[in-house]
Amino acid sequence: MQSLSSKLLEKAVEQFASLPGIGRKTALRYVLHMLRQSPEEVKQFTDSITALKESIRECRQCHNISDEDMCEICSDPKRDAQTICVVENIKDIMSLEATGQYRGLYHVLGGIISPMDGIGPSDLNITSLLERVANTPVKEIIFALRATIEGDTTGYYIFKKLPRKDELLVSTLAKGIAVGNDLEYTDELTLGRSIVNRVRFELNG
Amino acid sequence: MQSLSSKLLEKAVEQFASLPGIGRKTALRYVLHMLRQSPEEVKQFTDSITALKESIRECRQCHNISDEDMCEICSDPKRDAQTICVVENIKDIMSLEATGQYRGLYHVLGGIISPMDGIGPSDLNITSLLERVANTPVKEIIFALRATIEGDTTGYYIFKKLPRKDELLVSTLAKGIAVGNDLEYTDELTLGRSIVNRVRFELNG
Repeated sequence: MQSLSSKLLEKAVEQFASLPGIGRKTALRYVLHMLRQSPEEVKQFTDSITALKESIRECRQCHNISDEDMCEICSDPKRDAQTICVVENIKDIMSLEATGQYRGLYHVLGGIISPMDGIGPSDLNITSLLERVANTPVKEIIFALRATIEGDTTGYYIFKKLPRKDELLVSTLAKGIAVGNDLEYTDELTLGRSIVNRVRFELNG
Repeated sequence: MQSLSSKLLEKAVEQFASLPGIGRKTALRYVLHMLRQSPEEVKQFTDSITALKESIRECRQCHNISDEDMCEICSDPKRDAQTICVVENIKDIMSLEATGQYRGLYHVLGGIISPMDGIGPSDLNITSLLERVANTPVKEIIFALRATIEGDTTGYYIFKKLPRKDELLVSTLAKGIAVGNDLEYTDELTLGRSIVNRVRFELNG
């Protein structure tokens, strides 16, 4: 696509094209859509981004993004404060929340230990996690980290640092074949894990 | 996808999801990308949209969008001012410009005659086109309108209104099979047109 006849248009297209996965053609489509909108609608669009960027905070307990000092999950009395699920980033919280299967709290590390990328334990929210475990009545820590060496290393590192409490249970996400998937299309490592960690078949479950 | 834990995030996602063809998941991806950007980069993004919306104008000659009173195409002395290509909207100009095959000027109608949608000739930039033809040394009018009844009607309507000048040539886009397409996959109407309007085979062309 060649350059556009308007510099203003060109600039807006460039900005949209800087979003992940958007090419110039799609960017142009969005910009032309903007041009057809009323000035109020466009103002709403830009205002929502500005407000987000200026006012969003990090939950002081779990490091989730939040409008308030404490995020909606941490301040929800209906959630189980004795369980903390440790995740890499806020997107993981969204994915887990979307399952509707988890009612505990979270802790966002903000990354994963990865010497290759120069990310060490001190770059992550590990100290605040250890403090939470020490100072609140936590009964279970679930590591919901990516299933890679880095993910396992991070989990293991934190596990070693955790205060030795008798009643503290530490777990990690089950690995296995995806629901609905054929064995044929599952890689050997995953399939191996899923047979080693097989789950007892229960008639009424 | 369930609602997000942050109202600010929710609002920004909603705004992105209002763009054509963007669902909530993709919108969230863009918003999280925004959150990772520096405040300056986000400001650049929103500013480019605001500037576009506030400052963009319509070229007073051809109704293309423009930063100035007259658009870049109309004010380019290297373009052939004796040829006007009549299009429905600015996107059509972009498509034609992308071909690199046309060096004349344009005239944007801003729509097409469509009684079903309540769009009549007076809703389109037809008067200004007739004035252009009357007052400038135009030699050819090309109708580059959609290949539908409405497109043909619009072209015919304008054709009838054009001042009778001896040297004024009026043409329309060739219809035919798409380059690279099999005859098998071309509909009968198009194939019919392409055989009726067959082009003489030239050895050195």
